[in-house]
Amino acid sequence: MTSAGGVDGSPSAVSESNFLRACRRLPATATPIWLMRQAGRHMTAYQDLRQQHSFIHLLTTPELACEITLQPVDRYGLDAGIIFADILTPLEDMGLPLEYTEDRGPVLARPIESRGDIDNLHVPAPDAITPYSLDAIRLASRELHNRNLPLIGFAGGPFTLASYAVEGGSSRDQLKVKALMMSEPDTWHALMTVLSELVGNSLLAQAAAGADALQLFDSWAGILSPADYAELVLPHTKRALEIASAAGVPLIQFGTDTAGILDLMSTAGVDVVGVDWRIDLLRAWELVGPDYAVQGNLDPAALMAPIDQMLARAKSILDSVAGRPGHIFNLGHGVPPNATEDSVSRLVDFVHEHSAVPVPNA
Amino acid sequence: MTSAGGVDGSPSAVSESNFLRACRRLPATATPIWLMRQAGRHMTAYQDLRQQHSFIHLLTTPELACEITLQPVDRYGLDAGIIFADILTPLEDMGLPLEYTEDRGPVLARPIESRGDIDNLHVPAPDAITPYSLDAIRLASRELHNRNLPLIGFAGGPFTLASYAVEGGSSRDQLKVKALMMSEPDTWHALMTVLSELVGNSLLAQAAAGADALQLFDSWAGILSPADYAELVLPHTKRALEIASAAGVPLIQFGTDTAGILDLMSTAGVDVVGVDWRIDLLRAWELVGPDYAVQGNLDPAALMAPIDQMLARAKSILDSVAGRPGHIFNLGHGVPPNATEDSVSRLVDFVHEHSAVPVPNA
Repeated sequence: MTSAGGVDGSPSAVSESNFLRACRRLPATATPIWLMRQAGRHMTAYQDLRQQHSFIHLLTTPELACEITLQPVDRYGLDAGIIFADILTPLEDMGLPLEYTEDRGPVLARPIESRGDIDNLHVPAPDAITPYSLDAIRLASRELHNRNLPLIGFAGGPFTLASYAVEGGSSRDQLKVKALMMSEPDTWHALMTVLSELVGNSLLAQAAAGADALQLFDSWAGILSPADYAELVLPHTKRALEIASAAGVPLIQFGTDTAGILDLMSTAGVDVVGVDWRIDLLRAWELVGPDYAVQGNLDPAALMAPIDQMLARAKSILDSVAGRPGHIFNLGHGVPPNATEDSVSRLVDFVHEHSAVPVPNA
Repeated sequence: MTSAGGVDGSPSAVSESNFLRACRRLPATATPIWLMRQAGRHMTAYQDLRQQHSFIHLLTTPELACEITLQPVDRYGLDAGIIFADILTPLEDMGLPLEYTEDRGPVLARPIESRGDIDNLHVPAPDAITPYSLDAIRLASRELHNRNLPLIGFAGGPFTLASYAVEGGSSRDQLKVKALMMSEPDTWHALMTVLSELVGNSLLAQAAAGADALQLFDSWAGILSPADYAELVLPHTKRALEIASAAGVPLIQFGTDTAGILDLMSTAGVDVVGVDWRIDLLRAWELVGPDYAVQGNLDPAALMAPIDQMLARAKSILDSVAGRPGHIFNLGHGVPPNATEDSVSRLVDFVHEHSAVPVPNA
């Protein structure tokens, strides 16, 4: 494989990859595609590893995390890898131990309950945050760069981490974290301040270790009213991204249920805004603004549909943005655990073929 | 209490109530307010009844359902009652038996799995759908009309009922129902056709029994992409509302996570569009269009906040629409079960006081 931008494996070949060009809203030879949660449970190769090792062992062993990161890239021909890691593990490095359950993955051993709990937290130096994931990034970025492909690093958004820290795990209505933010604004801002430093430092360290782009998963920010998001979350998201921006790599922000706050999200200091499937992508791009790339937005459930139904929906998304530079194809959320590899493979191939720019005859 | 529009307890006094005037986008003496799930678990009076009776007994005993309907209206001075009923019970009358669990309320005993299951369903005559709820409506509307207040009847939207019928109960990702709608469009449309007739007939019967307005709770429609909503759900919602429109009473449609489909929802044939808290109310009104009233949209979590924080958020909503005729104040979803009666009471009083139109000096 050769690249227009440089010698294979060279920094410029990676920098001129379709994914990184789309992050900068430059034309690509085909619409780049990667999929949230592309590595992991839906893949047989992952399940085979999981038979032999615990989830936490896979997460904390750099060679294995690297292998899992590469699995979907090599299997499907995706345009980027995303490091196999977990958004919660950085919490441990600032003093919030996790428990690893078989079903739910990591949950908080002792959720935040008072101001005192927050005062006990400390923000580690960048390279002391999930050092095993940083090692995995070093390995995986080298492998991907050899393929002229970029690696995405990521962190949970400050709000999403705060929600886990207060609720103790996943929560449907998020009433505890909302009660805290509305009842004790000072306590809330203290918590969000340490979390935004943690997140910013983690992203910075990932870029230093070799990540070519960084995604903030503020997955749950859409549970808030626009006014509450603007006042109680956005300033801290901005701070985290400001710290990360020193790395000089593209920044992506993603959340679900965000149709009412997309215009606010794009002011956080990012290059790319991830969009879930609940809004038309072109309308979302209007809300986000022309100065940003967008990433999305196929309903993950389409992967469970017959191939023709899935591809019709993918085609409709591609046709709606009509090859406008700055579109990165993705799902509107993660790959469902029981999606088939055949469906994923067909989707990736279709996106590449349908969006490929014809090469002029020589 | 007297009304501008007619003698107490007369049909015109009810018709000129602030709630029904707002449904028609006519000026009101104060912004009307009612709250989704205003009757039920958060109220001590309800809990007292619940100590003595099962949930299903309360639901199916007209005198008790009437009593529960009136409890919040009398306690808080709300502008409308909504019949104490359950969106799932009509399913039973078309051949889908429910099981009543202590925690989750009714769930489906035998979820829909095949086309054969759908062919076995039948749509009952309007007055054969939840006859106990129709009796409760007869009792409650008489009581409310004596107070010059209207009663709201309701049904689940065809999609929300289909989701329950296929998933068997509440579901986070709705992957089963999405798989069905995407995989077997004919089966899907057959299911939605019987459900829209069921829903339309149920609403019609409720109006005939005395309901002064009808709300369609298509609570889960926001889980779909706009394109899927438009093609696979909206035509059936329209059909249900078309049947209900023969009653000649205001129709309200509500869902959550709908910021991306509000413009589609308003084409379904309703007078009022309910808006959740994830979008600014004024922006939502722009998407819905000027020919519709809107209902919403305080984050229910605000009821768990200190009173001043809750009222600041309510004030911001009222101030944003600035008394424009056609705003009905409500939460963006139901009252949380552990909200306090004091919070609810303070909210209702504040909305009335802050929005009251000054009476000119005599």
